[in-house]
Amino acid sequence: MDMHDLTRELKTANDSKIIMLVADGLGGLPQQPGGLTELETANTPNLDALAKRGVSGNSIPVKPGISPGSGPGHLGLFGYDPLQYMIGRGALEATGIGFELTDKDVAIRCNFCTLDDAGLITDRRAGRIATEESAPLAIKLREVSIDGIEVFVEPVKEHRFVVVLRGEGLGGNVADTDPQATGVPRLAPRATDADSERTAEVAAEFLRQAGELLAGQPKANGLTMRGFSAKPDLPTYEEVYGLRAAAVAVYPMYKGLAQLAGMEVVGNAQTLEEQVDVVREHWDDYDFFFVHFKYTDSTGEDGNFDAKVKKTEEFDAAIPGFMELNPTVTIVTGDHSTPAMLSSHSWHPVPTLMVADYCRTDRVESFGEAECLAGGLGQFEAKYLMPMALANAGRLGKYGA
Amino acid sequence: MDMHDLTRELKTANDSKIIMLVADGLGGLPQQPGGLTELETANTPNLDALAKRGVSGNSIPVKPGISPGSGPGHLGLFGYDPLQYMIGRGALEATGIGFELTDKDVAIRCNFCTLDDAGLITDRRAGRIATEESAPLAIKLREVSIDGIEVFVEPVKEHRFVVVLRGEGLGGNVADTDPQATGVPRLAPRATDADSERTAEVAAEFLRQAGELLAGQPKANGLTMRGFSAKPDLPTYEEVYGLRAAAVAVYPMYKGLAQLAGMEVVGNAQTLEEQVDVVREHWDDYDFFFVHFKYTDSTGEDGNFDAKVKKTEEFDAAIPGFMELNPTVTIVTGDHSTPAMLSSHSWHPVPTLMVADYCRTDRVESFGEAECLAGGLGQFEAKYLMPMALANAGRLGKYGA
Repeated sequence: MDMHDLTRELKTANDSKIIMLVADGLGGLPQQPGGLTELETANTPNLDALAKRGVSGNSIPVKPGISPGSGPGHLGLFGYDPLQYMIGRGALEATGIGFELTDKDVAIRCNFCTLDDAGLITDRRAGRIATEESAPLAIKLREVSIDGIEVFVEPVKEHRFVVVLRGEGLGGNVADTDPQATGVPRLAPRATDADSERTAEVAAEFLRQAGELLAGQPKANGLTMRGFSAKPDLPTYEEVYGLRAAAVAVYPMYKGLAQLAGMEVVGNAQTLEEQVDVVREHWDDYDFFFVHFKYTDSTGEDGNFDAKVKKTEEFDAAIPGFMELNPTVTIVTGDHSTPAMLSSHSWHPVPTLMVADYCRTDRVESFGEAECLAGGLGQFEAKYLMPMALANAGRLGKYGA
Repeated sequence: MDMHDLTRELKTANDSKIIMLVADGLGGLPQQPGGLTELETANTPNLDALAKRGVSGNSIPVKPGISPGSGPGHLGLFGYDPLQYMIGRGALEATGIGFELTDKDVAIRCNFCTLDDAGLITDRRAGRIATEESAPLAIKLREVSIDGIEVFVEPVKEHRFVVVLRGEGLGGNVADTDPQATGVPRLAPRATDADSERTAEVAAEFLRQAGELLAGQPKANGLTMRGFSAKPDLPTYEEVYGLRAAAVAVYPMYKGLAQLAGMEVVGNAQTLEEQVDVVREHWDDYDFFFVHFKYTDSTGEDGNFDAKVKKTEEFDAAIPGFMELNPTVTIVTGDHSTPAMLSSHSWHPVPTLMVADYCRTDRVESFGEAECLAGGLGQFEAKYLMPMALANAGRLGKYGA
């Protein structure tokens, strides 16, 4: 019996509202040992007030020591065991641009690249070609025709686009063709399991025809394929939690991830202020709101400590707007840490707080990595956050007699 | 390899004594956010002294966010994974009145109820009929005769009694016949799996004959059936831990639960003082003593904060009596939280302490929810308490070379 078996059995309905505010890559590291992290450096009066009112802790995204990508990071927050459920990058990207995958699909993230006369890669991103130039080329690739296969090609941004192959017997396990280097040829598509042999053949044919269609292009005369993936099979928020769930995100990847969990993407907010507005407008229509803030992660990825501090303060400033809606349960967390010191996702636990009427307040007085160590949530695997939120919302009955 | 595989392999015998003092529903909530819980409010000098001497933490009965019933709550304390082992309420109640279930049995909790002329329920508890009136009626129901089935009917208390059906091919999965409402008819017994079809038929025949036997009774002219369950299959304390275990409880349910784990119910104590006496009398006969104190839970269920504080203080006052016996390992815990603020079992972790010569004392100075957050046991799933107790008793060898 896993956690979803439990929540399926115990879930009850009521009028409560749960809001989960995710500051991507929230956790950090000090610039010097013993110093303060980005979050601890930032002036965050609103988050501190929530930490004082609520119960805090540190969330382990997957397992101790494991640095997650955005997929597993969010799956954990959504209560899906990230070791049980896996989402390929292609599937995530396709869903994020609004492409509805079916069970017959394999989605692939593609990059335009520049090849020399010998077929060696000279630029893995085709000179970061502008979207205005690349989108028509992606659309031109729709001319590829493969027997028994429906081919979809969707522009994304700059050198990036998505290919979806639809047909019978297409497994999702094919290795990337991007060699992650220049001066070398691209790799041929290679199935990593027997069920994906056909997919590798179809991908090779796609690449052959695409080469002809792109011949003579100055920048984008080739392409690489990454993140082959079939549609992941996630049970929905409605089914496992009884929640009508809305996602309020700016970036396609996070919208896509939320959709795979059965959330509806609402609004078209581009800023935190607009995200507050979108949540307010849809407050009566949903039981659960996932709000995603990207810039704590991207500044961390840039290795810019001060910028991450500033983005954390912007995130803090938006908190009162959400709290005015008086949610039954408020969660503030991140999908993983992105310390500016590492310029990358990391394995460090993520400061997390929950505010609700019966959350058993602890002695934590402000929101930060060290302070959260004294919190009542302790260190916990992210996948337990949703059951705790449901309990605090009065949405879980008693287990057993 | 689960924890019982480990303890089976590693257990060693010695003369140590382990005592587990369970204050039912021990954990609580403050009356105002930021205030003190019941346990923190109570004057508990003896528990505080143990917390100072020992190692403390907060126990998660099942999983984060899950509020357990008494069954899963105790299974966890006894070291049985409450998601792996499930005990039906009928089996629990039957065992609790000393009825020894066999593999051919299905046990059912029954309530006398009052029906009107149209067969609609007017009182689900037959006016809480006195035991003196109800017990003879339960015994009268032993006249029910069903081909191929041995029928047992045992009075419990007031409107409650137990029916055990013994025969071949009786599955334990039949839905309750109590509609949990008045002014409606009772539900017919309905099997929820194919193996329980015969059970549902036998139960229907029992109800038919019982209706004739109860006809004309002023209050108890009908009955409802709940918690159908076969005998749960638990390995014994002796087998998994090598412990001769005794249970010293007042209420039938906790005696029954302990028996299912292979403990022997000893004494007939009605008060904590008598429980101390019973433990003392049997001190040489057993390696492990489970002592159950009910009233921290029942006052919490009543929503009576002050009464729970008082009962917690009574529990504290009994501690020296147990400690005079000089146990090798002393555990104080609860099977779940029952905050008076919620008047129900809850999901909140349960303050827990362990005292033993080598328990690695922490900095906890008193026994309470917030203080335990700083304890050396951290937050841990209740099922790990028994392995920790065995280790502290010197009863577990090394794992691996």
